[in-house]
Formats: sequence, structure tokens, C-alpha cells
Amino acid sequence: MNLPHTSAAEGFVDRHVGPRDAETAHMLATVGAESLEVLIDQAVPASIRQPRPLDLPPARGESEVLAELQRIAGRNEVLTSMIGQGYHGTTTPPVIRRNVLENPGWYTAYTPYQPEISQGRLEALLNFQTVISDLTALPVAGASLLDEATAVTEAVLLMRRAVKGRPEGVVVVDADTLPQTLAVLRGRAEAIGLPLVVTDLSDGLPADLPEEVVGIVVQQPGASGAVRDLAPLVEQAHERGALVTVAADLLSLTLLTPPGELGADVAVGSAQRFGVPMFYGGPHAAFMSLRQGLERMLPGRLVGVSTDADGAPAYRLALQTREQHIRREKATSNICTAQALLAVVASFYAVHHGPDGLRAIAERVHARAVTLAEGVRAAGVEVVHEQFFDTVLVRVPGKADQALADALQLGINLHQVDADHVSVTTDETTTENQIETVRSVLAHAGETSSQDGRPARDEGELGLGAALRRTSSYLEHPTFHRYRSETALMRYMRRLADRDLALDRTMIPLGSCTMKLNAAVEMEPISWPGFANLHPFAPADQTRGYQELITELETWLAEITGYAAVSVQPNAGSQGELAGLLAIREFHKADGHGERDVCLIPASAHGTNAASAVLAGMRVVVVKTAADGEVDMADLRSQLEAHAQDVAAIMITYPSTHGVYEEHVREVCELVHAAGGQVYIDGANLNALVGLAQPGELGGDVSHLNLHKTFCIPHGGGGPGVGPVAVAEHLVPFLPGRGVTQVSAAPQGSAGILPISWAYVALMGGEGLRRATEMAVLGANYLATRLTEHFPVLYTGPGGRVAHECILDLRALTKATGVTAEDVAKRLIDYGFHAPTLSFPVAGTLMVEPTESEDLAELGRFCEAMIAIRAEIAEVEAGTWSLADSPLRNAPHTATMVTGEEWSAPYSRQTAAFPVAGLRQDKYWPPVRRIDQAAGDRNLVCSCPPIEEYA
Amino acid sequence: MNLPHTSAAEGFVDRHVGPRDAETAHMLATVGAESLEVLIDQAVPASIRQPRPLDLPPARGESEVLAELQRIAGRNEVLTSMIGQGYHGTTTPPVIRRNVLENPGWYTAYTPYQPEISQGRLEALLNFQTVISDLTALPVAGASLLDEATAVTEAVLLMRRAVKGRPEGVVVVDADTLPQTLAVLRGRAEAIGLPLVVTDLSDGLPADLPEEVVGIVVQQPGASGAVRDLAPLVEQAHERGALVTVAADLLSLTLLTPPGELGADVAVGSAQRFGVPMFYGGPHAAFMSLRQGLERMLPGRLVGVSTDADGAPAYRLALQTREQHIRREKATSNICTAQALLAVVASFYAVHHGPDGLRAIAERVHARAVTLAEGVRAAGVEVVHEQFFDTVLVRVPGKADQALADALQLGINLHQVDADHVSVTTDETTTENQIETVRSVLAHAGETSSQDGRPARDEGELGLGAALRRTSSYLEHPTFHRYRSETALMRYMRRLADRDLALDRTMIPLGSCTMKLNAAVEMEPISWPGFANLHPFAPADQTRGYQELITELETWLAEITGYAAVSVQPNAGSQGELAGLLAIREFHKADGHGERDVCLIPASAHGTNAASAVLAGMRVVVVKTAADGEVDMADLRSQLEAHAQDVAAIMITYPSTHGVYEEHVREVCELVHAAGGQVYIDGANLNALVGLAQPGELGGDVSHLNLHKTFCIPHGGGGPGVGPVAVAEHLVPFLPGRGVTQVSAAPQGSAGILPISWAYVALMGGEGLRRATEMAVLGANYLATRLTEHFPVLYTGPGGRVAHECILDLRALTKATGVTAEDVAKRLIDYGFHAPTLSFPVAGTLMVEPTESEDLAELGRFCEAMIAIRAEIAEVEAGTWSLADSPLRNAPHTATMVTGEEWSAPYSRQTAAFPVAGLRQDKYWPPVRRIDQAAGDRNLVCSCPPIEEYA
Repeated sequence: MNLPHTSAAEGFVDRHVGPRDAETAHMLATVGAESLEVLIDQAVPASIRQPRPLDLPPARGESEVLAELQRIAGRNEVLTSMIGQGYHGTTTPPVIRRNVLENPGWYTAYTPYQPEISQGRLEALLNFQTVISDLTALPVAGASLLDEATAVTEAVLLMRRAVKGRPEGVVVVDADTLPQTLAVLRGRAEAIGLPLVVTDLSDGLPADLPEEVVGIVVQQPGASGAVRDLAPLVEQAHERGALVTVAADLLSLTLLTPPGELGADVAVGSAQRFGVPMFYGGPHAAFMSLRQGLERMLPGRLVGVSTDADGAPAYRLALQTREQHIRREKATSNICTAQALLAVVASFYAVHHGPDGLRAIAERVHARAVTLAEGVRAAGVEVVHEQFFDTVLVRVPGKADQALADALQLGINLHQVDADHVSVTTDETTTENQIETVRSVLAHAGETSSQDGRPARDEGELGLGAALRRTSSYLEHPTFHRYRSETALMRYMRRLADRDLALDRTMIPLGSCTMKLNAAVEMEPISWPGFANLHPFAPADQTRGYQELITELETWLAEITGYAAVSVQPNAGSQGELAGLLAIREFHKADGHGERDVCLIPASAHGTNAASAVLAGMRVVVVKTAADGEVDMADLRSQLEAHAQDVAAIMITYPSTHGVYEEHVREVCELVHAAGGQVYIDGANLNALVGLAQPGELGGDVSHLNLHKTFCIPHGGGGPGVGPVAVAEHLVPFLPGRGVTQVSAAPQGSAGILPISWAYVALMGGEGLRRATEMAVLGANYLATRLTEHFPVLYTGPGGRVAHECILDLRALTKATGVTAEDVAKRLIDYGFHAPTLSFPVAGTLMVEPTESEDLAELGRFCEAMIAIRAEIAEVEAGTWSLADSPLRNAPHTATMVTGEEWSAPYSRQTAAFPVAGLRQDKYWPPVRRIDQAAGDRNLVCSCPPIEEYA
Repeated sequence: MNLPHTSAAEGFVDRHVGPRDAETAHMLATVGAESLEVLIDQAVPASIRQPRPLDLPPARGESEVLAELQRIAGRNEVLTSMIGQGYHGTTTPPVIRRNVLENPGWYTAYTPYQPEISQGRLEALLNFQTVISDLTALPVAGASLLDEATAVTEAVLLMRRAVKGRPEGVVVVDADTLPQTLAVLRGRAEAIGLPLVVTDLSDGLPADLPEEVVGIVVQQPGASGAVRDLAPLVEQAHERGALVTVAADLLSLTLLTPPGELGADVAVGSAQRFGVPMFYGGPHAAFMSLRQGLERMLPGRLVGVSTDADGAPAYRLALQTREQHIRREKATSNICTAQALLAVVASFYAVHHGPDGLRAIAERVHARAVTLAEGVRAAGVEVVHEQFFDTVLVRVPGKADQALADALQLGINLHQVDADHVSVTTDETTTENQIETVRSVLAHAGETSSQDGRPARDEGELGLGAALRRTSSYLEHPTFHRYRSETALMRYMRRLADRDLALDRTMIPLGSCTMKLNAAVEMEPISWPGFANLHPFAPADQTRGYQELITELETWLAEITGYAAVSVQPNAGSQGELAGLLAIREFHKADGHGERDVCLIPASAHGTNAASAVLAGMRVVVVKTAADGEVDMADLRSQLEAHAQDVAAIMITYPSTHGVYEEHVREVCELVHAAGGQVYIDGANLNALVGLAQPGELGGDVSHLNLHKTFCIPHGGGGPGVGPVAVAEHLVPFLPGRGVTQVSAAPQGSAGILPISWAYVALMGGEGLRRATEMAVLGANYLATRLTEHFPVLYTGPGGRVAHECILDLRALTKATGVTAEDVAKRLIDYGFHAPTLSFPVAGTLMVEPTESEDLAELGRFCEAMIAIRAEIAEVEAGTWSLADSPLRNAPHTATMVTGEEWSAPYSRQTAAFPVAGLRQDKYWPPVRRIDQAAGDRNLVCSCPPIEEYA
């Protein structure tokens, strides 16, 4: 196709949007619409269109936005943090920063649901699991959780499930647990009616506990820094039939007897200090590991080892049936994303340093803390705990304020526990000079403090006693020894990235996932020290830049969604849902209707919806879907009638997961409101709405957004995500961060990546955002038009148009030929594509979402591939090839296979590998053939297998 | 091999060096040396060892070095530059910064001498040539030159060569040429006795020129900003039989009638403002383009299109026989490197913006200048030239000083021409506010200036008249239209990078090229605005950081080499040589021995040596090489006798290009000194000396260094390089930058990349640098020991050891079997390697240099490949395979070939593609088969071929 050139110099909108003007015209002609406006009028019911354009600042250029973000970052003051409390200074090795955190090959990848094109990141995540498993001495570790506080919550839920026959199961939590963990845990336990006892466990389990204890949670080192021998406590708990979770500091485990060796059942914590910047609170990878026997209860993702069609070892996500997207209201966790990119960074940090390097870092961190403690004690000031790893708790009666102020003057933030106590935490970056500075500050505070005549404590030895010390080895796998030079590590990272398909090589047309451009200009600022190196509990006057950015972003998102206010605290879509539902619950309570606990959910909803409702303490009632894919209005009416007294909410997705703009949405909202319920509109498909319609204006009371879909935060190979919650005026008092619920450990969630979405909105402006939506709709309709004669498009809206995605129905073909949607998905790999969404929301279909960022050439390449695959299916239909020995079933084809000496397939090697000419020069070769999912679940291997297995 | 673990946490030295301690022990055992010290004692003659350890600051950690560089960058003050004079503010699109400038896939690549593994960067360079050719309207453009000033010099040399029969050929240069261009040109012309006339050409050629004019050089726009119709001047020149070179501003050519349409023969200039930061002077890609008929005279590299063994189009360097490495003393230029990475950045800038985008930028730049000029004139101040593109020359009698000071107060640097004139240059980043600021400053200066009663000039229209405007189109090739969205561009850049093999995927064991680690920590600072965004002529008090860094680096390099002083001005090794030889020449002159003009050069020397000597105005006399590879002492003695009165210098390389430490080096130096000559020691092999021996201490008077070899500046796919010159005390007054010779346009050459080498020395410390040298020697000896039984090692030193590289002799095998060193080089591609240096310094051999950064696993992988290839040669020897149809001659094998329907080769597909098991998972597939070099030279195509050719 030879199209005329674009005529004007592009602004950022034209960089973000794929098609040039001439391409747009061509696409419009193909779909048979006179103009983009006409197409949008056909696709989007007039009844839902927003009344006025978005009121956002005009689009700014890339340089302007970078300069503005530089100014904002400059308002953040980066001091030395010795605050600790779960967030630590750490050095991100530049080789990892450059080649992972700043490399689109890593950060634009999707969750590894298609394992054949994800072997690189799956290996990195398996390395992460090995690090966690080895360091905690518990055999089964997951591929990361959202943050430490939610990981503790998940552990508590797990313990309750694991201990059978104690329906009133109580969980006992040590008082020396991190305050943010307690805050999140309390809210979550309260929502589901789980009784918590928070008490001092330093002398073992109190005698007066109820019988029905199912679990114990203890933090080691404690929030106060204290390190204790936990073995007796674990024994007591086990004697009572309860399980034990230890919230552990990952670095300390290189020196301390690990939870597994203490007998603990579960270990959780944060991997932040393994090279991931503090990021003002996130994103960071939390971890969880379990003892043998509990593995099938693990929340979140687990990478396992299986084999491919040739019997070669291959990685995959294991035990996926546990996941909420299958279990819906029976789900035990609503966690669906992970913190893959951050887990990958942490894993490479461990690969880079190896066991000896990590131990040396920990010894240095510990030695600095000991130096400080000894210096303080020598000055006559009391060190409260004699056994500690990195945190020294100092008693300066009445002078804690002054000590903090003095240290601040010298550029150091300390942690004030109360009026009389200060704690100081050392980390990888702490220098001797800083220790001396803090020592003199504390000595001065001690001198001038009003000694209260309390007897001096024993002058025992300071630091870690031999009894607490770890004697076992860890990280003996060759992976943690082979890549210790930068050259070797750089090549290892490149090799792994090359095994995967990410957005930097192909479109990823995943319906409901919105894999759009993550522009370099949006990504650059997150590595700047002014955004990366802030502690979430740094004094407010040091974080003015973040406050400005977050306030502005929340305001913009409120404008975009038509709500009154937004909180960016939820650090995943699932957490946004939960926060929204908790806000509804609190609203009903405050309104005197605490009894309302039914949550209506259409059959076509994301599984997460139901899981979140359960975890918000609601009962799920399913509403049927009509034949046209819309909510069955009759069923809705009857359910509302049946639950007239107890309906709390309905959760709908708009446009629906069927990829169309439903006409009845306002009516649905009105009916639910009339019944006394609140309307939750899932923002998963917001990319079809921005600038055209506002959930808040349609009748929604609350929505969550996915900044990692619509607002350009990259998927990172399976996280980070950010799931802000947006609410109408009456729900504002119930937003997280406003005093009621806290759903993430850090006050602002994954603040460190918010500059990405801020930049996107600033670069696009209101008009640009609307343009992006329109182009996304055009792209989907272009694909639908070109492909429907080959694969019927299952649903279209009243105007005969799809929204921003479309469902290709393969069921008839499957019935006729046996070729499944999965076969097509795997065959697409041979054509160099990541598959569309498979069998969601309708089994046996593929849901395709091109986004606005794909240009005509790439859309055309996809159509070419799909049409060629349809012709291959025709060959099976015609009997030319048996299904079992067709390129579809044999897909994907590896280079080893196609260059084998033997070739018995009824199709040619060229058909296998180069089915279309465009593949010749830049072919992606999958590293493995199709992976046996069942075998890997039967025989679970979830840490690095012995290297001999690859021989 | 299962080696014990490293025991201690690594510092940077251990990151830079490949082998762990246990690997080092294994390698020592293999070579049969008890320790590294023993090996070094065997390899390095005691007579050359330096007397004391290097006196350098102790090694610093990565974080510490980044913090220190941040402090240094902070001492540079980044103001708005409106200085112009060949250096302009520009916006590097973040997508290019991240994916090219900060991507090791691009910056660690070597010069594309092995075209089969360089198709990606060759395409990018072809795009660059197309940009230059289209914009200058001259059909043949090279793949970049070092800077604009040396490009003009090369153009002058070319014109002199091209015009036959005028041995006294005079070149006339317009006075309105950039001052730095004039300075470099004058020095270079003087060295070779080329008469220059610098005069005002604005009214055409003066009548009183000598007969023998061979060429005219004119700058457009002039240094003063003036734009003139050059057609009459070109015509006058051609009438006199002279050629015309136009030094052009690349951006202006989108609006101005281009040199080719004006009839010019040659165009030169800088591509800096196409997205390459000012970098305080460099590195930037200069360009040259020529009219048809001159192409075989083009200096530097030229990318051309040829075909591979399957007849598919393939890129390669064309006309390589022109290069200095072949022509030696017959060379017409000593340019051997280019500015590939910067040319690639500039080419992607053009791909990103396309012709319409570039034109829009140029129109905006021009409009800002017009606004300024009109505003100034409206305030009653004289605008000297009415026709201009981006530079406005303003007359403010007696007030230029004050105007500069006033603008500076407001954060803007202007250019002071003299006491009465200021020039102001606009660029892509200039804002309306800045224009208003400068207008008011100039208006104020005009008001208060002492009007000298000169008559007011005509009040003609300001800006570019229609007669000067370009009407022809450019950049119509699809490449400049297809990748205009960021997604498309990102994928294009990834595809191109993936076609190439760089250090991020494999060792590049190129003898004499020292392809070692370019650590991320060394690379990060060069993108910081505090280093990237400084104009080379910014006031000294704004560049204190650079001054500190450069002074310190020069001091360290002097200590390392044992010389009195160093200048970093030369922006390539060849320029360092030239600067060193010019210093020798000046020294002899000052010493009353201007007649000394003979330069002795051993037969084994790099070709560049001879070329540089010629361009320094010397006569080259070759000294024989003895059978053991050393300088033939008897021949040296006789040559010195023959040239007793006129010997100026000897140029030797140490260790010699044969890869051994010669014993006689001190004797050579003494003999030459006794004969009144100076000793030039080429620093190409300095990686074998650092910390062990110092050229200055061995008897050298001058050396150049290659910071892009020994000091970690990446090769960038063929540049940038930096070639500092180091001299003994008596030569210090003759260093560039100290008043005598100027060899680069910018005072500090390619200052922007000096932080890389500064960081390397700071990170390593003296001991670390010595360790690196020792490990490089160990690596080479390990390879020599393991490979010599398969491929004899040609030369070893007196201790039976090689230095940091070794020559594998294939000549006997070639004689016996016909398999050439080239066949082995190409077959190595199938094994995933970049070939060693081919046929230098000895034809029919491979010179292998592993460097200290390769670990045992990679060295082992290389040995495995070479041994397997030797076995393949044995099959040819045995007659199993004919040479013509052997995997060696058919190499490299593409995926298309190996998956073809037909397979007639006598070896298997697996042998072709996966000759060793290690290749299975991460195989590199070359995009083309072996390329026909001769066909491409016969039929020269050196801009993007029509897209149909790829069908």
C-alpha cells in the first residue's frame, strides 16, 4: 500500500497513536464510516456520551513535560533515610537499572500466561522464587505479591483456610509488627469478620487466648528492631494446632536462622531492599513462602517447571486453577497481578551479588548498626534491644522530637517511635560518617534528656548472638554464581529478554488488557533520584513534589471518570475493587444499612469482581447475561426484588467484557439505585470511554481504574499495576487514605510509577485522550471488519459496531475441525505474535484489543496472520492434514524442530516456520515447543531445577 | 566444570574483570603458571616494567563514582545557548535516547567490517547517507566523519586530488567560515604545504587570485548567519576549473536550495542538531556528500548495497580498498573511524520526524530568528544581514560586551563577534519568551550604544527570500514515513539491533580493538543534562565541572602512560597520531631542525600510522620486521644511518601488532634518539601495558591513547572514539590546545564521552587497572595455550608467552585445504561469535584479543567453537566435504536456508545451524548469507534502495 505522507509535524498525540492520517482514512474506508466522528456515533450510544469535553490542561510537548517533571522532582527533597519500617535505602546496580528497569524488552512484556513466549521472565521469576525459598528455608515460594502488608493479610487468610474445623478461628498478631501491616490487616479482617488479637508475644503466647487460634503472625526483626529466638513461640503455637507466619526482612535472613528452620509454616516480607528503589512506597515485590503441604493454598502466581512437546524443560505458571479468575466467588484471594518487574529486579540483584555478596552486604549493614548502638551506649544512652539486625531502638526520654530535628538538620531522617524513643535503621548505603552523625545527635539528646530514674539495663553484648545466627547455606544454584561479572550478567539479561515477546517486537492484542505504548518520555522520570529515592514516611515537607503530582493526577482522573474524588492508594486493580467495595460497605453502615451485603455480578464479569466482593465481606449473587451479551434486564429486576432489603451493590463493567457499549447501562444504574444499592463500574475497559463517556456520569458511584492499562504504566511482565479508586461525592469520606480503609502498605501505594500516568495525561491533553479512545475503537472495528468473514465476531453493539475490542468466535470451527482457540493462539507465535485473550469472557473464543498505538502496518500483519491461519484450518477441514499433525496443533515450532534431520510432517518446514513472507528477516523463534500444563502441576517444581536437567 | 564460589563481595574491579578467582586459578593451571605474577613475569620483559605502582586515587565504588560525577556535572551550569557557531540546542527524542544511545545493543557494537552480523547498523547508516544525500542534493554521501572542521579539511584534500595537473593547487576559503574550521584547516594545510587563501567571497571570486586554484570553500549560512545565492560563485569557480565545497547547516537544507542544486561538488557539515546533544563539543557526526564522479575519492566509510550468496540485498562497507589500512603511505586521508553511533542517532531523528517534521522544525527555527530580527530592527538597532536562516547578526557599537552580560543575567548565552557585533542563533528548543528576552537585551544595548553615524542600511525584508528557497522534495523513501509513531519506531530500532551481534550477546575477540566491558555505571552520566547540554564555547565559568573532569583525566592518563602531559582534544586515534606527529614537527622546527621529515615505520604497523605521517607532512620510510616479528634491528640501524640528517621520528607500536612484548624496545628508542629523532609509541595496545609499563618511561616522546579501547568508551558500531595525545616534557608546548596545533573543531574534542573513561579509572584505581591488564594477558595466554595445537600461534615473546592477544596462523591449513581465515571468520557467526581480526597484521591469520572482561565460560565457548571448526576443516582435508560445499564456505547459514525444502549439502542442517549443543536455546541467526563484496563495489548503491528490491 502506498499512502500519501502525513502533512504536519507531529505532537506527542501523533507519536502515541499508531496510524497516520492517511492510514486512518484507509481504515475508515475499510470499516465503511465516513469519518471518525461517524464511526464513534455508530459505536457509542448517544445516551451515554458525556455532555462536555474533558477539562484538562492542553497537551504539552515531550520536552516541556520532562522539564515540568524535573521541577516537580526538585520539590522532593532526597535526604538520607534511616527510618526503616520496611523501606530501606538500597543500591540498584546500574547494569540492572539500564538493562531491566529501563529496557522495554522487560517492562513492556505481559503476564506470562503464554509460557512459550515468556521463558525469559519465567526464568527470572523462578530465580526470585529460589531466592525466597532459599533465604526463608521454606520450599515453596510464589512469584511475588503486592506489598508486605497485603502479603501478611494473605498469610492470615491462608492460615485460616489451612486449619480446618475452627470456624471462629482467631489470629494472634505480635504487637511488634509494622504499623502499616497492622492497619491493612485490621481493615481486611474486619471486612470478613475474622477475629484478630494484637498482643505482645515477646514472652511467648499469652495464657488467656481463646481456644480457636488458627494462626500466629510475628515480625522478625520486629518493628522495634528486636530480634528474638522464635523457636519456642513456634512450638507453643504448633502445640495449640495453630500455624505460624513470620514476616521477615529478606536481607537479615542471610545472617539469621530462617523461618523454615524455626519451624514456621509461612514466611512473608518485602524484597524491596534487594535493589529496588524506595519509590516513596512502591512498587516493590512482596514475597511469600510456605512449608511443604501448603503449596496448593498459595495466593498469587507460582512459576513451575514442566516440559514441552519435545520433553525439554520449560517454565510456566503452575496451579493456575487456584486463581481467582477461575474460582470467582469461591476464590480465597482476589490477588491477580503480581509485582513481576520488581521481583525480576530483586532476583537479578541476588544473581549479581550471589550468596557471599548478599551476606557481606548484610554483615556491613549489621556492623554499622552495632557501631551505632555501641557508640550510643558508650555515651550513656539506653539501647532498648540488645539483639538486633539493622534497627537500633534508643531511649531518650522527652527528647525524641529534638533528636529527629537535629538529625534532620544534618540531612538524615530518623524514626520517632514516641516522645521517648527513636529508632535508627541502617542499610546498604549507610556510611560510617552517617553513623557518627547519628551517634552524636543521639548522645546529645541522651545528655539533655530528663532521666526518669529507671534502672539501667544489663550491659549485654550488642548485636546478633551466635544462637540467632544462621548456619545453613543458600543460593548454591549455579545461577547465583555464573553471572557475577557485569559482562556475564548483561548477556544473561539479554538472553532472557530475547526469549520473550514483548511490545517492543509485536503488538499484544490482548482483549481487556490494553497493551498500548509505554512511551520512553513517560518512563524516564521514574529512575530519577527525586522520584526513586524517597521513603514513604519521609516528613511531608520533603515530599511536596509527590504531593503536587498525586493531587494533580487524582484531580485529572476524577475529571476523566466523572467522579468527585480519586485515591491512588490501591496498588493493583484488585485492590482498587476492594477499596471501592469497602467504601460502599462503610457508606451503607454509616447510612444505617449495615445489613446490605449482597453484591450482584453479571455472569460475564471478570472473576476478580466476585473475589473482591467476597473479601469485602459481601455475598455474591450472579445476574444472567442475555443472548446479545448485555445484562439480562429481567433477571436483574427479579434479583433486585429478591434482595430488596439486602442489596449492597452491583458490579458491572462498561463497556462490558463482551466488547460492546451496552445501551441499558443508565437503566441498570437507576434500577439498582432505586433498590437502595450502589453501582460499581469496573474501569477495566476505560480505554473505550476516556473523553467519550464518564462512568461517574453514567450512574456509577464508584469505579477503579487500571493505570497499567489505560494510563500507560507498562505491564512489566505481570506487574506493577496501579488501581486507583474513584468515587462519587457521597463516598468521598470512605476513600482509602481518608481515615477509613487502608488497602496498601504505603499511603500512596505505588507512588514511584505515578509519574508515568501523570506524563501521559499531560502529554495528551483532553482532546488527545479522546482521540486515543476513538482510534482504539477504530482499530478494533478495523480488525472486526477484516476478520469477521474468517472468524465471526461474536458481539456487536446496536450500531453494528464493536467497542475497543472484539471477540472472534472459534466454536463452530472447533466443532467442525477440532482446531481450538488455543491452537490458534499457539500458532500465532509462529507468525511472531502474542495471542489475544484466550477463552475470556467466552470459552472457545479469542478476544482481540489492538489499542490506538498500533499502526495500519501492524494491524495488517495481524490480519494477514489470522487469515493465513484460517486457511490452515481449512486444510484440516479438507483433510489435507490431520489435526494431530497439523501446523496448528504442532505450534509453536522451534528452530531445533524445523532444522531437524527428520521431517515427517505433512506440511513443509517453510510452512512451519515462515508461513508468510514477512517473517523472513526478523523471525522470532520460541525457545520451547508447546508446554504440557498438566504435567507441571502434577509434579510441582518451583525453584531453579538442577542444571543437569538442561543437558 | 564445577568451581568453588568466590568468597568475598565484589568491588567494581571484579565486575569489570570476567573470571572469578577460581576461574583464574583454573586458567593459570591451564597455561602452566603458578600465579598471575609468575605469568606476567614470563610474558613481560623485566627491562620494560615500570619502577613503581601507579599513583592514582584508590578504587571507588559505583555509587560513589556516580555521586562524584553528579557533583562534577553540577559544577557545569546549563544555560540557554544561542551561541550557534556550529553547535545547537536540539531535542533528542526520548525514544531514541533510551533505545539507541542508552542501549548496549547499539553502543557496544563494533565497526561493521563483518557485514553479515552488522545489517542493522548498516541499514541505519545507509539511512544516514540517504538523509545527507537527499538534503544536500548530492548523490554520494559517506557514513560520517569526525567533525565539521576535519570534514572541511578532508574536502579540501579531496578537491586537491580531484583537480589534476595543478601541483601548486591553491584553495580559497571564504572568510565567513566558522573560526574553528579555519583554525583546523590552516594547521592541516600548513603541515602538507597546501596554500590557502582566506578571503571575503560574498561578492564572488576576487580577480587577483593565482591561476592554480583547485577549490573553493564557502559556508552557508556563513558564520555571520548570512545566506547568499551561491550559484554565481559556483559558476565562477567552475569556469576557472576549480571545485566547490559548501559547508552547510543540515537543518537549513530543508528550506534552502541545496548545494547540489547550486552546482557544488562537495557538501560537508555537522549532523549534530539532528538530535545529538551539544556534548560540550562532541562527539557528533559530520557529513560529506559528493557529486557523481567523485565517489571513489570519498574519505572515510561508505555503506553500500550488494547481494548475499542467495542474491538477497545486503549492506556492507563499500570501496574499502580506499581506506588507509590498505593504502598506508599512499593514503589520502588518515580517517579510519567514524561517528557511527551519532550518525545512527541523527538518522533515527530524521526517521522519527520525516521530511515534513524536519521542515516544520526548520520553519519554526527560522520564524523565531525572523521575529527576533524584526523586533531588534523595530527598536532601531541594525540587523547586519537581511537574509539569514537561524542566526541574526546585530550591530551594537561598543555595547557587545554589555549585551552579552545582560543576556547572561537572564540565563542566555549569546555570541560576541567583536566589540560592536553580537550574533544570536535560534534552534529547535528556542521559545518565544527567549526571543523576547534577547530582543529587549539587544534593544537596550542598541539604545545606549554610541551610534557612529554610519548610514542606516536598506530596510529590506528580513529572512529567507523566495529565491533562496528550496523547491525540491527530499526523504521520500518509505523509511522516513513508516516509523512515525513511537511504537513503530521502537520496533524498527529493536529489529535493526537484533540483526547485529554486539558485546551484549557475545565476546568480540578482535585483536588490537580491545572490546571490553562498557559498564552501565560508566555510561549513565553521559545522558545527564549537566554533561550533555553544554555548548563548547560557553563561558569558562559555566563549565567548571568539565574543566575539573578533563584536567583530572589528563593527569591520570599522564600518570598511566608515564608522560608529562596529555591533551584529550583529538577525537579519534588517527587524530591523536596526527597531533603527536605535528607536535614532533613543531618541536624540530623550534629546535632549528625543520628539515627533519622522515618518519620510520615498521612493516607490521597499523596502516593509519603511515597515513598520519603523510598528513603531518612527513616522508615515510619502512623498517623491516624480523622473522620473530620484532623490528629488524639491523635494518633500523641502516635506515637511521641513511637518514642521519633527516630522521624526524619513528612510530612503533608496543606491544607490537604481533601481540608480543618485544625485548628491544628501549634499544630502539635509544638508537632513534641518538640519531636525533623522536619516538612515537602508538598506544593501540595500551591494554597490555597499563600498570605494568609506561610508554613514556620506555623511551617514548609521544603516544596517543585510544579511550575507546583501553578506557571503556564503547565502539558505538564504528565510533565515537577519543584519541588523547600524551607527550614528554619537551613536547608539552606543542600539544593541541596549547596554542600550536588544533586537530578537532571543539577545544576538548569529544568531551561528552570523557566521563566514561574518567569513571573507569576512578572505579578501578591503580591496582585495579594493573589487575585488568594482567587478566587480559592471562586470557590471551589461555586461548593461545588451548588453541595452539589446533591453530598454531604465530608469535610468542621471549618467555614463550603472548601479550594481550595472539595470532592464530591458518596459512598452512589454507594451503592444504583451501579453507581461508575468512571462511573461519564467517563460520564463527554460525557459532554465535563475532570474528577475530582478519588478516591483520599478517594476511591469512586471525588475531584474537579476549580482554579481561571475558569469563572462563565465554573463553571456553570460543575454544569449543574454534576446535569444532578445526574438526570441520579436517573433514574438508579428509575429503568428506568438498570445500565449495562445506559448512565453512557456505557460512554463515541463515534460518531461511536451513529450513529450506531442499537440502543438498553433504552435511546436515543441524551441523549447519547447531554445530554445538550450547547453541540450541539462544541461537543468533544472521539475517543474510555471505555477502558478495566485489559486486557491491562494481555497482555502487549507497542510499536506501527502492523498497521493491526487498520483495
